[in-house]
Amino acid sequence: MSIAWTSRYAVRTKGIKSSAIRELLKITQQPEVISFAGGLPASDLFPIERFEEACRKALEQNSAQALQYGETEGYQPLREMVARHTARYGINAQTENVLITTGSQQALDLIGKLLINPGDRILVEAPTYLGALQAFNAYGAEYVSVPCDDDGLRTDLLEAPLRLGPKFMYVLPNFQNPGGTTLSENRRHELVTLANRYGIPIVEDDPYGQLRYEGEHLPPLVVLDRGNVPRDSGYTLGNVIYLSTFSKTLAPGLRLGWIVAPPEVIAKLVQLKQGADLHTSTFAQVVAYEVARDNFLDQHVRRLRVVYRQRRDVMLEALAQYFPAEVTWTRPKGGLFLWVTLPKGMHAEKLFHEALKQNVAFVPGESFFAPNDQNHHGNRHFRLNFSHARPEEIKEGIRRLSLAVKAQLQQVRVA
Amino acid sequence: MSIAWTSRYAVRTKGIKSSAIRELLKITQQPEVISFAGGLPASDLFPIERFEEACRKALEQNSAQALQYGETEGYQPLREMVARHTARYGINAQTENVLITTGSQQALDLIGKLLINPGDRILVEAPTYLGALQAFNAYGAEYVSVPCDDDGLRTDLLEAPLRLGPKFMYVLPNFQNPGGTTLSENRRHELVTLANRYGIPIVEDDPYGQLRYEGEHLPPLVVLDRGNVPRDSGYTLGNVIYLSTFSKTLAPGLRLGWIVAPPEVIAKLVQLKQGADLHTSTFAQVVAYEVARDNFLDQHVRRLRVVYRQRRDVMLEALAQYFPAEVTWTRPKGGLFLWVTLPKGMHAEKLFHEALKQNVAFVPGESFFAPNDQNHHGNRHFRLNFSHARPEEIKEGIRRLSLAVKAQLQQVRVA
Repeated sequence: MSIAWTSRYAVRTKGIKSSAIRELLKITQQPEVISFAGGLPASDLFPIERFEEACRKALEQNSAQALQYGETEGYQPLREMVARHTARYGINAQTENVLITTGSQQALDLIGKLLINPGDRILVEAPTYLGALQAFNAYGAEYVSVPCDDDGLRTDLLEAPLRLGPKFMYVLPNFQNPGGTTLSENRRHELVTLANRYGIPIVEDDPYGQLRYEGEHLPPLVVLDRGNVPRDSGYTLGNVIYLSTFSKTLAPGLRLGWIVAPPEVIAKLVQLKQGADLHTSTFAQVVAYEVARDNFLDQHVRRLRVVYRQRRDVMLEALAQYFPAEVTWTRPKGGLFLWVTLPKGMHAEKLFHEALKQNVAFVPGESFFAPNDQNHHGNRHFRLNFSHARPEEIKEGIRRLSLAVKAQLQQVRVA
Repeated sequence: MSIAWTSRYAVRTKGIKSSAIRELLKITQQPEVISFAGGLPASDLFPIERFEEACRKALEQNSAQALQYGETEGYQPLREMVARHTARYGINAQTENVLITTGSQQALDLIGKLLINPGDRILVEAPTYLGALQAFNAYGAEYVSVPCDDDGLRTDLLEAPLRLGPKFMYVLPNFQNPGGTTLSENRRHELVTLANRYGIPIVEDDPYGQLRYEGEHLPPLVVLDRGNVPRDSGYTLGNVIYLSTFSKTLAPGLRLGWIVAPPEVIAKLVQLKQGADLHTSTFAQVVAYEVARDNFLDQHVRRLRVVYRQRRDVMLEALAQYFPAEVTWTRPKGGLFLWVTLPKGMHAEKLFHEALKQNVAFVPGESFFAPNDQNHHGNRHFRLNFSHARPEEIKEGIRRLSLAVKAQLQQVRVA
């Protein structure tokens, strides 16, 4: 007798669907396709020689640690480095506030595991990062969606959703994925004040903060929130859990992210991480530390900024040159993505299939909205990545894409 | 206002306690302590030069893949290698049956996420691997415990527990952690037949199978089960999910394990893994593949067998030499652990604290039993690891430990 596995799956798996991005990534790996779909850093900028040197050092000087089991919290020198780096942005983190995770996707999973009971409402931006929806769905999350505009989350629309008592707010303040928008400084203050007034914690996801191509760095929510923590409360940090990653600044293949949180929250997350994967690869951690140390990471990030800024500019110019006036898009000040809005009647997923025929790919907007969000027009948006393709490919890809856009626009006009 | 984080934790976190092993590992890292506590492979046997060569190859020939995002299923050549290797043991696995996980701890977590609804009963061996209990606890598992003897799980006691309808059975047939015992061939057949009769799937955890120091390899449950799968059912595999890892044969610091399961189960686990960490470190996977390929892993495992066999023998001899006759222990034919049973009245956790004063450490038995298991005598057992310490340390450690044992035995006799 063979078991019907399907009948044995846990209830929670019902809400879990395969990620659109992932299925797309498979299609778009053919060399003839110019892909703006993935959130991929530029492979040609990986600092190979520095990695080789780091591997040699890790293995020659530290193999008994680098290849052995390690502490769940993470490799101590790496935790210290993360604490030092975040301190430069005013984040008052000690080593004990830092937990190294297997990519920041695991941070989202552990936060879901720690905080979400089935049916709990999570306040999210509309649109928001689809990987967060995927992580939270596995714990039975429901959602309250609040729209974004060019200045990020609409804090003027926050009070009614906050009165519904969401378990936490999930916010990407810098160069949002997928919107490319940045939360303005005023709204950051408003958001933290409101969170404090209603007693709702914030999960601040900041994978792209260092990749700013113009304008001034804005204070993270975790820093603004500190003003609300009484000095004698014993809290190093208050109501914000802050997440970031080495995926965009060093290499996603390492799967290294981190959580900055009050020690009592870290302690609980450590227990959950033990059950989830014991600890993140010590080898990847030791190598990343050896690559990043002695200011190499800062230099490397400066190089990324120059290259990605140029790629963003090439994409913006190509969009202006090739796309019809009815289509609009965001102008991100950093990060990896911009967000395109199609006129009424057009349909991003249909466009996607047409675009694939032209050998160009993107991610349709639908999957960036919470499943119960009725107000959005997901099918009128799509996300473009500008960090992975080279400038000449970007220009050619946008030209190809414009053909598909114009063809669908023509059909809509006729109809 | 600071948030009381504790009041926001999900219900599921209540059952989650910090792992005893983990806290112990911290104490026992001091150099003067001889530790038999962790499940650590010997650091002095890591093949450093081969790793250096592998890193060079991965970075010089394949960096755009090794450092970039990859597929959730795993690095294709590594999946193929795992399928080939398991085929040698008669496991009829194709590449599509293999999912690479972030250590086999993540395999346990994903299986919990896929199959366990709160309150579901899981049938476990008593004692069993504490990391599995920790992973399953996070999904609200309850347990049905079935005792083991020197031939492993007591299959003669299985029918009544199976009638309770457990969601699945979790079994470690080879050189069990912590018991060191191996499920006899007769019992393997009985177990698979009973699983089939009652329609209860088996999760077969086999981290140590290749580390056999004497006797013949016994057929894995997943192979015996195949006889029950109709040839025309479309199933490559049937009712057994098989887990293994590179942690004991290559290096635990890579965090690389795998799941072998029917394709429909793999597809669902892939969706859950996407939300959990997107994918396992591509860098670790590419490096592991380059280390293991061209039969290096087989040669390396042969070397491990020689060294670990010697260490086991040294530990068994030292136990016979130093320990009083009232204490007994298992004689494992492979793996990393043996299991000590103390006479009535003695107490492993008290002994642990006494042993630490003698600068020697082990893991008390209590945490290897399901929390609701009333029948065990966890405090009369402890686990010893014989793979990590060198022979002269093993001898000295057992001598020190015997002092603590004799002292407690003396007290018990007096009382």
